[in-house]
Amino acid sequence: MDIDITGPSLPRIMGVDGEQIHESSTGWTPIYVRENLALISTSFLLPSPDTPIIWRGPKKNGMIKQFIKDVDWDELDFLVIDTPPGTSDEHLSISTFLRQAAAAGEEPVSVGADGALIVTTPQEVALLDVRKELDFCRKAGIRVLGIVENMSGFVCPNCKVRHLSFWGRVLIRQGESNIFAATTGGASALAKQFKVPFLGAVPLDPRIAKCCDFGESFVDEFPDSAATKAFLSIVNGIADP
Amino acid sequence: MDIDITGPSLPRIMGVDGEQIHESSTGWTPIYVRENLALISTSFLLPSPDTPIIWRGPKKNGMIKQFIKDVDWDELDFLVIDTPPGTSDEHLSISTFLRQAAAAGEEPVSVGADGALIVTTPQEVALLDVRKELDFCRKAGIRVLGIVENMSGFVCPNCKVRHLSFWGRVLIRQGESNIFAATTGGASALAKQFKVPFLGAVPLDPRIAKCCDFGESFVDEFPDSAATKAFLSIVNGIADP
Repeated sequence: MDIDITGPSLPRIMGVDGEQIHESSTGWTPIYVRENLALISTSFLLPSPDTPIIWRGPKKNGMIKQFIKDVDWDELDFLVIDTPPGTSDEHLSISTFLRQAAAAGEEPVSVGADGALIVTTPQEVALLDVRKELDFCRKAGIRVLGIVENMSGFVCPNCKVRHLSFWGRVLIRQGESNIFAATTGGASALAKQFKVPFLGAVPLDPRIAKCCDFGESFVDEFPDSAATKAFLSIVNGIADP
Repeated sequence: MDIDITGPSLPRIMGVDGEQIHESSTGWTPIYVRENLALISTSFLLPSPDTPIIWRGPKKNGMIKQFIKDVDWDELDFLVIDTPPGTSDEHLSISTFLRQAAAAGEEPVSVGADGALIVTTPQEVALLDVRKELDFCRKAGIRVLGIVENMSGFVCPNCKVRHLSFWGRVLIRQGESNIFAATTGGASALAKQFKVPFLGAVPLDPRIAKCCDFGESFVDEFPDSAATKAFLSIVNGIADP
């Protein structure tokens, strides 16, 4: 469920942009990326991918409510909700609606939210926002499943030198080799400080952005890459902790 | 003026985080980064940089109005407004308030907005949002000053090989050497398509993110870098077109 209402990117990333939602007697049918993976996004409601969605908070909140209530999700093992950055309408609404749906025993979210997964890059300027999200989760009563560090270190495709900032320890071979340096210890140090799990770090691999642009699965295309291994380890850590 | 209300980063980037706003008879005094550079941000209103601002649209809009009406800006040559991504409350509000202030002849924005500057990275997933912003500007009657491409190409600090995606022509020496590849031609091709100026590309230099984290001026610290030259050329192109 893509609740980045005014900047929906998941349809492109998953290779289903340009699809249109169909309505049936049981509700809106989400777009099936694979047999076991369905996606809903405001992008599917637009006449063209270039059309902006110029909505203030209340209209965004109404759409999020419809995504929960009116989509025919069928039986779900997991419902993953992707939010934009910030601590505003989308975050307050999804948290409230999930709690209401759980209290009312409404499928598919009758069990409420398992928790929040927080994804960041290693720089302090990004971690500033993460600290705010962590405090938001605490105030909203949402458990934090853990923090993931993205764009963490880089392997130059020419010289093959690895520029690492894994696990918060800044291991740099050259003085200025980190793309996004963990100047304050990165996500790992932050997780420790806030006593929430650190789930892992995905290295910066330029092929990930390319796969996103072409709507291809990086994990399928590059199964032996360091990024795929890190990604799968993080997913397994969440799905089966 | 930092109107990323729930995710304010400019105070950290400009080295003035932790400062507090003072109120006088003439209004809120902005924080002076230098003698000729003043900044206002919700970050200055918080008891701690970790405190989240959990506000829905109306409260965000009220704060933006105060930033225009209640801040003692003194005489300004330029008022630069940094928005979060999207086409929602912040964008609608700032556009409406600027138009109202211009109609009422209110300083410092009595002349209205000169236009919007759109900053993007080269990937298609980012350009998707830029097309929406361009259409938003058209609908809101805001002139587009131009598009800037950020994180455009990368020089490996170890092997010194340049991995370029400048000016939309994808010049890659190695197959997978772009950090954020311009798979659909980048910002330059997009600017041409939408008939708006392309103002330039700033290469990805890891020292920029470090300077941001430490609140130092990259332009002062690394005056001879390719990124500084690109940046100054873009600024001069806007300030004195």
